[in-house]
Amino acid sequence: MPTLRLALAQVNPTVGDLAGNAELVRRWTRQAADAGAQLVAFPEMVLTGYPVEDLVFRRSFVAASRAALERLAADLAADGLGDLPVVVGYLDADGPPQVSADAEPGRGARNAAAVLHGGTVAARYFKHHLPNYGVFDEDRYFVPGDTLTVVRIGGVDVALTICEDLWQAGGPFAVARQAGVGLVVNINGSPYELNKDDIRSPLVSRRAVEAGAAIAYVNMIGGQDELVFEGDSMVVAADGTLLARAPQFVEHLLLHDLDLPAAPEHGPGSGDLADGMRVTRTRVSGTGPAPDGAPASGGIIEPVADEAEVWQALVLGLRDYVDKNRFPSVVLGLSGGIDSAVVAAIAVDALGPQRVVGVSLPSQHSSEHSREDAADLAKRTGLDYRIEPIQPMVDTFLANMSLSGVTVENLQARVRGVILMALSNQEGHLVLTTGNKSELAVGYSTLYGDSVGGYNPIKDVWKTLVWRLARWRNADAARRGETPPIPENSIGKPPSAELSPGQLDSDTLPDYAVLDPVLIGYVDGDLGRDGLVEAGHDAAVVDRVLRMVDTAEYKRRQSAPGTKISMKAFGRDRRLPITNRWREDS
Amino acid sequence: MPTLRLALAQVNPTVGDLAGNAELVRRWTRQAADAGAQLVAFPEMVLTGYPVEDLVFRRSFVAASRAALERLAADLAADGLGDLPVVVGYLDADGPPQVSADAEPGRGARNAAAVLHGGTVAARYFKHHLPNYGVFDEDRYFVPGDTLTVVRIGGVDVALTICEDLWQAGGPFAVARQAGVGLVVNINGSPYELNKDDIRSPLVSRRAVEAGAAIAYVNMIGGQDELVFEGDSMVVAADGTLLARAPQFVEHLLLHDLDLPAAPEHGPGSGDLADGMRVTRTRVSGTGPAPDGAPASGGIIEPVADEAEVWQALVLGLRDYVDKNRFPSVVLGLSGGIDSAVVAAIAVDALGPQRVVGVSLPSQHSSEHSREDAADLAKRTGLDYRIEPIQPMVDTFLANMSLSGVTVENLQARVRGVILMALSNQEGHLVLTTGNKSELAVGYSTLYGDSVGGYNPIKDVWKTLVWRLARWRNADAARRGETPPIPENSIGKPPSAELSPGQLDSDTLPDYAVLDPVLIGYVDGDLGRDGLVEAGHDAAVVDRVLRMVDTAEYKRRQSAPGTKISMKAFGRDRRLPITNRWREDS
Repeated sequence: MPTLRLALAQVNPTVGDLAGNAELVRRWTRQAADAGAQLVAFPEMVLTGYPVEDLVFRRSFVAASRAALERLAADLAADGLGDLPVVVGYLDADGPPQVSADAEPGRGARNAAAVLHGGTVAARYFKHHLPNYGVFDEDRYFVPGDTLTVVRIGGVDVALTICEDLWQAGGPFAVARQAGVGLVVNINGSPYELNKDDIRSPLVSRRAVEAGAAIAYVNMIGGQDELVFEGDSMVVAADGTLLARAPQFVEHLLLHDLDLPAAPEHGPGSGDLADGMRVTRTRVSGTGPAPDGAPASGGIIEPVADEAEVWQALVLGLRDYVDKNRFPSVVLGLSGGIDSAVVAAIAVDALGPQRVVGVSLPSQHSSEHSREDAADLAKRTGLDYRIEPIQPMVDTFLANMSLSGVTVENLQARVRGVILMALSNQEGHLVLTTGNKSELAVGYSTLYGDSVGGYNPIKDVWKTLVWRLARWRNADAARRGETPPIPENSIGKPPSAELSPGQLDSDTLPDYAVLDPVLIGYVDGDLGRDGLVEAGHDAAVVDRVLRMVDTAEYKRRQSAPGTKISMKAFGRDRRLPITNRWREDS
Repeated sequence: MPTLRLALAQVNPTVGDLAGNAELVRRWTRQAADAGAQLVAFPEMVLTGYPVEDLVFRRSFVAASRAALERLAADLAADGLGDLPVVVGYLDADGPPQVSADAEPGRGARNAAAVLHGGTVAARYFKHHLPNYGVFDEDRYFVPGDTLTVVRIGGVDVALTICEDLWQAGGPFAVARQAGVGLVVNINGSPYELNKDDIRSPLVSRRAVEAGAAIAYVNMIGGQDELVFEGDSMVVAADGTLLARAPQFVEHLLLHDLDLPAAPEHGPGSGDLADGMRVTRTRVSGTGPAPDGAPASGGIIEPVADEAEVWQALVLGLRDYVDKNRFPSVVLGLSGGIDSAVVAAIAVDALGPQRVVGVSLPSQHSSEHSREDAADLAKRTGLDYRIEPIQPMVDTFLANMSLSGVTVENLQARVRGVILMALSNQEGHLVLTTGNKSELAVGYSTLYGDSVGGYNPIKDVWKTLVWRLARWRNADAARRGETPPIPENSIGKPPSAELSPGQLDSDTLPDYAVLDPVLIGYVDGDLGRDGLVEAGHDAAVVDRVLRMVDTAEYKRRQSAPGTKISMKAFGRDRRLPITNRWREDS
C-alpha cells in the first residue's frame, strides 16, 4: 500500500492578480517540497482568485488565465519543482468564450483544475456541478464538465473534483467509485457562513464513503468583497474518518501522510461510465523520492465558539478589503455606542491602531457619557483619536433653511457623513460604516448619514450578536491578560441615536431581543407573516416589524437605481424587487 | 376555417399587487368581451408582476399567487365573463416551494400560465426555457416545465408558451408543430433594450414558420425598478407575415381577427412527443358567439426613431418608479448643465410640472450663465423652481476643518446633497440623481454628493446620447408647435462641474466623442485592451480610460459592502468583483 505525503495549501489569493497568485503558488509549492510532499493541492481558481464574476465574459481575462497557467507550469519546473505534481484551480474555456453576458447560452468558459507536472499541464478537469443559488451564479458563467479526470500519482489513482461537486449527490464522486480511485482531491472556494463548518466535515466523510476513496479537501482563505473564505481544509479516510483538519481564517500548509491503495498495473482505460460521464486517465511519472524521517500528521484543529469564529471572519474580511484595495487606513465615527465600538475593535484587530482613525462628532444632543465612552475606547485600543464638533455646520444649515423634526435629526447624521468623507478625501482613509443588520433591516439609519462609507464590517451582524461579540472579545482579552478593548459602559447602556433630546432606540423599535428573532425569520428564513406568528411571535409585533422592513427597502438600496436601456447598466443586482404593494401583513 | 377574434391585453401590472393586478385583468377582459373577443391573453406573471425575484422563496407569496388565480377565475365568471377563455401568467409551485435561496436545488416554483374559463382554471402550462443571463436569474427561481399544454378553443388547437420559450430554438415551438396546433400564444415579460424591437419581430416570424402556426405575442408595459417593459405585442401568421403590432410603452388592447385551421374532430390525444416533452390536451367549450360586424384588425404601428424610443422608456420608467412606490413628487438640483436639464424634462414629461421641484444650488464657482440657464429651464417647463445658495454652509465647513484641493470640490457637491435630502425629508419628494453613464463609468462624480438620490433616469445613458436626446426632444416640441423644454445654451456649452474656477470636464476626461466609444466597447461589449486598440481606438486613450473605469468601481458601489456571514446579507449582488489587481492595461 503506497503512502503519499499530501500538502494542502490553504492560501489567500486575490481576484485579478494573476501574477501575484502564481507567485503564491510557487512559494507554497517550494515550502511543500521542502517538507517532502508528493502531491500539492491549491484551492479552486487560485490563479485568478474567486469569484471572478463578470470578468469571465472578458475574452482577454480568460486568455490571460490560460497563459498564466502554462507559464506557472514552466516556472515551477525552472524552480526545480517539476517532479512534484501540483493541482491548481484556474479559468479555462473551450475556444474563445462569448463576449457578452447577454449572448445566447452555450458559453465556453470552464471552472477548471489542472495538474502541473514536468513543466507542462499534465491533466485538466472541468467542474461538473455548478452552484447557482445564494452567492453563486455559476450557471451564468460556466459550462459544466462531463468527464472525470483520473491521474496516477505515485502509484495511486487520484480523481480531481471542484467544490460543488462535493455538495451534490451523484456526479463525480459516484463515478470515482466506478473508476476505482484511491483518492479524490476536492479544491474549493467555499465562502464562510456561520456554522457551515459543522455541516462540511460530516459531508466530506459521507462522500468519502460513497466514493470508497480518501478525500483531500482544500479551501482558500481570505476576504473578497463581501465574501470571506475560511479554509477548514481537511483529509478524510475512505471510511469517513477525519484524519487531519486545518485552522480557520489563516494561511496554512496541511501536511499529512496517507496510506492509499495501489492502482492495478493494468487498470481500466479511459472510456464511458455511468451517468453519461467519461473518464480520462493520465500517468504522472516520478513524484520525487518518498520522504524519510517521521511521518507527517496534520493534526486536527478543534472548532471554536461561534463568537470567536465570527470575529475572525469580520477581522479577515475587513483586512483583506482594505489591503487588497490598497487603502492605507480607515476612518470611522465614534459615538460612544456599541456598534461603532465593536467596529473600531475589529478594525484595530485587523489593521493595528496606527491605521485606524476614530472621530468623535459631538452635537448638542450628545451626552457626556457618550463623549467619555468614545474617548475611553480610543484609550483602550490606541487608535488615532480626533474630535470634530458638528454643531457649527448644523446651525448654518438651520439658519439658511426651514427644517424641523426628523429632518433635523437626519441633518446631524449627514453633516457627520460629510466630515468623514472630507477626512477620507483629504487623508486617503477608507470610511467604515457601523450600522448593524437589525438597523439596516428596519431602516433605522440616515441615508447618506451614518450609512456613509465604503465598507461596513457588521452589515450582516444582528444587533444581539453585536453585543455577544463585544462581550466575547472583552472576555477573551481578559483571559489573555490584555485590556478589554470595548468600554463596559458602551455594552451596558440602552442604545440611542442621540439625534434629539433623550432619544432611545426603544422609542421607535421593539426591544432587540424581541426584534431580532422576527427579523431572522423574515429576512434569513423567508418566513411569511403567518409562519412567524405560528413560530410563536406576537402578531402585532410581527406586523409592525414586517412593515418596517418592507418600507426600508428603498433606503437599503442607497445608490440610485435608474432606468436600464442597454445590456449593462451599472449596479442592477439586487434580487428582491422594491414593492410596497406586497405586504405580508395585509 | 374558423376565425378567432384575439385580444392581446398589453397592460401594466405592479410587482406584489395581487389584488390590483387581478382587478386589471378583470377590467381589460371586460373591455375585450365588449369588443367581441373570443380569446384574451395577458402578459407573463401578470398576476404577481414581473420580476418577483426573491419573493419566489416566500412560501406565503406563492400561496397568495395561487389563491389569487382561483379567485380571479371565479370573479371573471361572476362578472359574466366565464365563457371567454383568458390566458394569464402567474406564479405556481409543485407542492410547498423551498423556503430559502440556499436550500439544495430542486425547487418547486414555476413560472406559469393558466387558461381561465367557466369560473375555473381550465389548463396550466409551466415555462420550459428559463433565461439565466443579463437581467434574468430564472435558473435560481424556477423549475422548467416538460409538458406542452394545448387547449382547443373555438375549434382551434392553441398551444401556450412563455417568453424565453420563443427565444430558444427547439422546445415548445418545435413540439407545437408535432402537435399540429393552429395558434401559439406567447405571453411575455420582455424588458426594453435599445433596438430589441428590431430583433423581436423577425424572431416571432421565424418561430411561426418553425411551428407552422400563427403566433399571438403579448408583452407587458411599465417600469419595475430598473427595468422597463415596452409592449410591442403582435400577431404573426403561420407563414411569418406580421399582421398586427401594438404601440410601445402604452397600455393597449390589440384586437385582431385571425383565420385559423380547424382542429381535427378526433385529433391525437395527450402523450409523449419528441425532445422528451409531453403534450396535454384540454377542450374549452363555448367561447361566446362569433362576433358580428366588421372584422377587427389591430393595425401595424411603425417603429419610431431611437431617441423617441429611449425618451419614452425613460419617462415611463421614472413615472412608474415614482407612482408604484407612491412618492408624491420629485426634487432635483439644476446646475444649468445638460444632464440636469434632460432629467428635469423627463421628469416633467413623466409627472407634470407640479410634481417636479428644481433647485438651483449656486456656489461662488457657479457662472452667471449657469444660473440663467437653470432659470430658463424652469420657465420653459413650468416646474417648481427654488434657489438655495450653498456658500454659507461650505464656508462653515472650511472654517472648522483644514480642507484643500479636490476635497473642497467634493464638499460643495456634498452640501448640495444634504440640502436636497433635507428637502426630501421635509416635503416628501424623491430625490433624482442626474449623473450620466459616462460619468458613472469613469467615476467623474462625488460620492454622496451629486450621486445622492433614489432614482437616476439617465444612469444607463451615455453622455453623447444625452445630447442626442436633448436635441430630439427640443425638435419634437418645435415640430408640435410647443416650447422646447431644454435651453439651447445648456446643450451647446462645454460641460463643466463648476466646482473650481474655470473648471471643464475636458480638463480631466477625453472628449465625450472619444470617450464614449471606448466605454461602450469596454463596459457594454466586454472588450479587453487589445480588442479596443484593434477596433481602432488610440492606445493611450484606451489605457487612460480603462484605468479610470477600473478605479471607479468602488465609487459606483455607493452603498457600503461588508462582510457576509449568513445566507442573506443585504445588498450583495453586483457581478464584477472589486479588484485593482486585474488591469487590462498592465
